[in-house]
Amino acid sequence: MQITKEHIENFEQRFRTTFINSLAGFRQAVLVGTKSKEGWSNLAIFNSLIHLGANPALFGLINRPDSVQRDTLQNITETGSYSLNFVAADLYQKAHQTSARYDKEISEFEAIGLTERTVDDHHAPILGEAVVSILMQLEQITPIELNGTKLIIGSIQEVILPDELVHKDGFIGLDEAQVLVTQGLDAYFSTQAIGRLPYAKP
Amino acid sequence: MQITKEHIENFEQRFRTTFINSLAGFRQAVLVGTKSKEGWSNLAIFNSLIHLGANPALFGLINRPDSVQRDTLQNITETGSYSLNFVAADLYQKAHQTSARYDKEISEFEAIGLTERTVDDHHAPILGEAVVSILMQLEQITPIELNGTKLIIGSIQEVILPDELVHKDGFIGLDEAQVLVTQGLDAYFSTQAIGRLPYAKP
Repeated sequence: MQITKEHIENFEQRFRTTFINSLAGFRQAVLVGTKSKEGWSNLAIFNSLIHLGANPALFGLINRPDSVQRDTLQNITETGSYSLNFVAADLYQKAHQTSARYDKEISEFEAIGLTERTVDDHHAPILGEAVVSILMQLEQITPIELNGTKLIIGSIQEVILPDELVHKDGFIGLDEAQVLVTQGLDAYFSTQAIGRLPYAKP
Repeated sequence: MQITKEHIENFEQRFRTTFINSLAGFRQAVLVGTKSKEGWSNLAIFNSLIHLGANPALFGLINRPDSVQRDTLQNITETGSYSLNFVAADLYQKAHQTSARYDKEISEFEAIGLTERTVDDHHAPILGEAVVSILMQLEQITPIELNGTKLIIGSIQEVILPDELVHKDGFIGLDEAQVLVTQGLDAYFSTQAIGRLPYAKP
């Protein structure tokens, strides 16, 4: 099947959204934890985690305009603090439920029955049920004028994860904890390891 | 295990690279096909595909400074044309081999034994063995000053995929074709479907 740009433009709107979102492939499911200046906690699922560099350790997140993620963006902008949380695949229903449009004063942790934890003096909460939690500090928000999205760039402040997932060479065996993968806006997967390969040479 | 920013900065360099790259989680494995002005073809694996918007349909890719992906970036900049190719999990060894530093005059298609195809009048080649191929046109390159990476933004021109993967609502069942997933710089996975969920409401 060969689908042109014109076909895509003429797709029914929901069909197009589902097609293009799922066309971007498999992605890490990330629950982003934040807290407003007033103390309202928020937890929201993202699928746009980006590795930007290892030294300094920088990760990016894409925020779409007018999305249900607006509270997250506001909290990050106001406080500079956020957490990235990966969960096991069996938590997929609760993870998905964080995409609902709860009022700002409602904590998704409470509404969905998840555990809010704080770590040291970090303002943002982490998810108690997470396999891996990463505490982030906002470094920069880069606007993408083409379509009004924003690239949120942060530096890694602290990583909390089970000892046994960290291999001798630094590799984190996320599949051993059956960490949740997503595709599009509503599809969830677990992974099966195929293998690791040595550094490739011509 | 609680790992601070200071711990990460003091990690041995290769350990840190492996740790931070794998910490970014599971990602879609993408083979990027390009051709230089002179006609030299290139195929290189990326793990940084980003969904930026459905209308217009825009995808991003991260290009790291001084990476083995420099030929890809140059070809995209010169010609404005590139393809994104997803492969089945059993092609993981050939997919990984595209990360080797071949000379610019060497075609990874030929060196690795993969099929180069052209579609209509698109300058960039696609991968004959791909499950899904997406022909892209460069729209913008956004530099990220913090660490010298570049965000390559392109618009979708054409999508080639098997009819039977496209569901009635537009969702593309990549798992049905066992599309390859990656983590870090050398780990490969296939996926197992858990399920799709309805639009979440509070």
